[in-house]
Amino acid sequence: MGLSKKLASYIIDTNYDNIPEEVVEFTKLCILDYFGSAIAGSTKAPVKMVHDFAVEMGGEPQATLVTGGKTSVAQAALVNGAASHIVELDDIHKASIIHAATVVVPAALAVAEWKKLSGKDLITAVVIGYEVCYRIGEAVTPSHYYYWHNTATCGTFGAAAAVSKLLELHEEQIVHALGSAGTQAAGLWEFIEDGAMSKQLHPGKAAMNGVISGLLAQKGFTGASEILEGDRGFFRAMSESFDESKVTNNLGKEFKIMENGFKIHASCRHTHHAMDLMIDLRNESDLSLDLVESIKVKTYQVALNITDNDSPETEYASKFSLQYCTALALVKGEGGLDVFNQENLWNEDVRNMMGKVEVEVDPDIDDNYPEKWGVKVEVSLSNGEKITKQTDYPKGDTENPVTEIELQNKFLKLAKKLSINERERLSAYVLRLGDIEKIEKIMSVFIKVR
Amino acid sequence: MGLSKKLASYIIDTNYDNIPEEVVEFTKLCILDYFGSAIAGSTKAPVKMVHDFAVEMGGEPQATLVTGGKTSVAQAALVNGAASHIVELDDIHKASIIHAATVVVPAALAVAEWKKLSGKDLITAVVIGYEVCYRIGEAVTPSHYYYWHNTATCGTFGAAAAVSKLLELHEEQIVHALGSAGTQAAGLWEFIEDGAMSKQLHPGKAAMNGVISGLLAQKGFTGASEILEGDRGFFRAMSESFDESKVTNNLGKEFKIMENGFKIHASCRHTHHAMDLMIDLRNESDLSLDLVESIKVKTYQVALNITDNDSPETEYASKFSLQYCTALALVKGEGGLDVFNQENLWNEDVRNMMGKVEVEVDPDIDDNYPEKWGVKVEVSLSNGEKITKQTDYPKGDTENPVTEIELQNKFLKLAKKLSINERERLSAYVLRLGDIEKIEKIMSVFIKVR
Repeated sequence: MGLSKKLASYIIDTNYDNIPEEVVEFTKLCILDYFGSAIAGSTKAPVKMVHDFAVEMGGEPQATLVTGGKTSVAQAALVNGAASHIVELDDIHKASIIHAATVVVPAALAVAEWKKLSGKDLITAVVIGYEVCYRIGEAVTPSHYYYWHNTATCGTFGAAAAVSKLLELHEEQIVHALGSAGTQAAGLWEFIEDGAMSKQLHPGKAAMNGVISGLLAQKGFTGASEILEGDRGFFRAMSESFDESKVTNNLGKEFKIMENGFKIHASCRHTHHAMDLMIDLRNESDLSLDLVESIKVKTYQVALNITDNDSPETEYASKFSLQYCTALALVKGEGGLDVFNQENLWNEDVRNMMGKVEVEVDPDIDDNYPEKWGVKVEVSLSNGEKITKQTDYPKGDTENPVTEIELQNKFLKLAKKLSINERERLSAYVLRLGDIEKIEKIMSVFIKVR
Repeated sequence: MGLSKKLASYIIDTNYDNIPEEVVEFTKLCILDYFGSAIAGSTKAPVKMVHDFAVEMGGEPQATLVTGGKTSVAQAALVNGAASHIVELDDIHKASIIHAATVVVPAALAVAEWKKLSGKDLITAVVIGYEVCYRIGEAVTPSHYYYWHNTATCGTFGAAAAVSKLLELHEEQIVHALGSAGTQAAGLWEFIEDGAMSKQLHPGKAAMNGVISGLLAQKGFTGASEILEGDRGFFRAMSESFDESKVTNNLGKEFKIMENGFKIHASCRHTHHAMDLMIDLRNESDLSLDLVESIKVKTYQVALNITDNDSPETEYASKFSLQYCTALALVKGEGGLDVFNQENLWNEDVRNMMGKVEVEVDPDIDDNYPEKWGVKVEVSLSNGEKITKQTDYPKGDTENPVTEIELQNKFLKLAKKLSINERERLSAYVLRLGDIEKIEKIMSVFIKVR
């Protein structure tokens, strides 16, 4: 039996009633965390452009946009996907290097709203979507990630899986939906050189392509039956090496969504470990910043592929500069959305500190990646002292978790565009999602937003 | 200067007035040929499904569907792209292995109609779109083609280029549009194993993604500035080897659309050379089919990668079976749309003949590919006689061209869904496209179609 068929059978067999309570509760937090990022992102210029594109195209008012108004279900997935990745605070799964929320949740939300489905349906679809894309991501990590943005490429399968469940597709249709998803999978890392807006296009398009795949499959549109493992399929075309057993090992016996990590700092996940250590250093000691002569950041190769930038010129690029993020966290003692701004980007103290940061690969840490996203920081002071700190897990990883309260607070902070009343209503809806009869009710919060 | 910037500068500098008359005339034939394929394809089940998806999503009535009605410009590109590849009679460029019409023309038509542009604008955009995707395709051929459907992947750039011209984007915006195009480029060959409908999804999505790229760039949405040649860009991620000089050599000094080939047989281009030889054999001699003992078809490797199938089970799959196509052409003496049907698929004479066909790689022919798409056919008869025929160019190649009359006749045959009156009107419009003030006028032929 091919992998797509095994995934299809898993998707059909997974129902709300056999998802453990703790998984249901955790999934609600993932969805709440999605809304925080999406709302914070919804006012950003690139998201506005994608929104304007959707408005220009028009469409049936099937699903609500976090940017305000309604559009077709495909375009809602596009806009709501683009919105939720931009503040760099959306969730992350280490082993697959995927931000699942920004692709799976907007696709599932749009279809669930359109089809008048319930909170239980949404939870089930999101659990399934995460499972499918995490497994495919793990199968191709790390080699795929060099060129490809896993969130987009593997995410497309997750979105298609979630949509397939919501549309109640039968097994054969799901295989076709996954085939169409894989043959639309795209998203190259090249944009990072320019800090271009593709990073928003990727999750939006992945969510939209997942919706298209599901809807076409429902109409009988066929796709490759072995899109993953086939001779000219996703694995061989887009990865130097892969382990297809990751797709099916323990499938249906565990819930990978529980491995999901949450972000507290508003930058690329590969900068968080170093930022955590810098913030700890500030909190633990009365270190005088003037004493710092050099900061050596030793980490895994992939982190440097994405974040080795010693002179970020834009706010956005600064979130992908390990040098900047390390300096910012040390100077400001925090790493939330508020500190990533123009003022701090050109702040003399931060810039000076950034000049003292050197980044390099540590072979041991590199060997343990991606199971551990580790870092070792050596701070040398002018008095001859040397402070060394090390961590294997950035804050928000399952091994170093955040609490529900911390996540609720993060949401309330990110969702500032909404009134406190609306924020509390949305948060309450999501936290009792199992009782919500129609997803429409949740999305009504956004109708009047702009 | 990066490749995208050079392409952008070429796109800006190319205007109707500097396109030679013979190129203008030839481009009209390309567009006429597009309409033939699109109209013939518009009634097919997979195309109907994509049409139904667009109707389900809704959208502003910006552009006309060859399947009837109007929808948003992005969705019109999707449907009209999906429609024009399915009867396997759309044009082909050997050196890049791209069917440009099915991606570039629907994208350009939709935007030109929407923006109330002229026939001259359309011609200019189509010339540009072909140029850009052929060049990118040549740069990555042959290695890219093993996994990737060039028409879709490289075609996306062609669609984006044509749309950029029609929207009068400035240089920087065009660079961004190409960046967005490249990071959406997708389309794996894996579907061919199942004869799945992805082959229609690919050009449709490529056309749509080209439109999205152009429209987003117009709004200020940025993309990678070196999406082709960058370290994590299109070339390195998706080709084992590539020659970037192909993108810019003689750019602006020649018109690659003139290298376009047209298809007369309704099957994969890689089967045409052998079919031509079989039809010639029938026309030249009074060969008795009973005498045929074996037929050895020697060709290049890529042809076998796609068309080595000795037992096609569906009409669609039969168009990708070199064995079937060779037998069909020999038994029926022709290879047009009419002979690819259920009856012939299960016809005993054709099936018997197919059993006698063996296919293999000829190293000399393989060495000359893709400049020459050659074949050598050895027919052994039971009387001991052996007939050998060879060709380097299938009928319709520039080296073995079809006439304007042949193309008009092909159009009239393919467009049978329209009344003869409508067909002649559409053909006349296209052949005097330089005088048409608004593309809307041409597309009005389809408004009442269903």
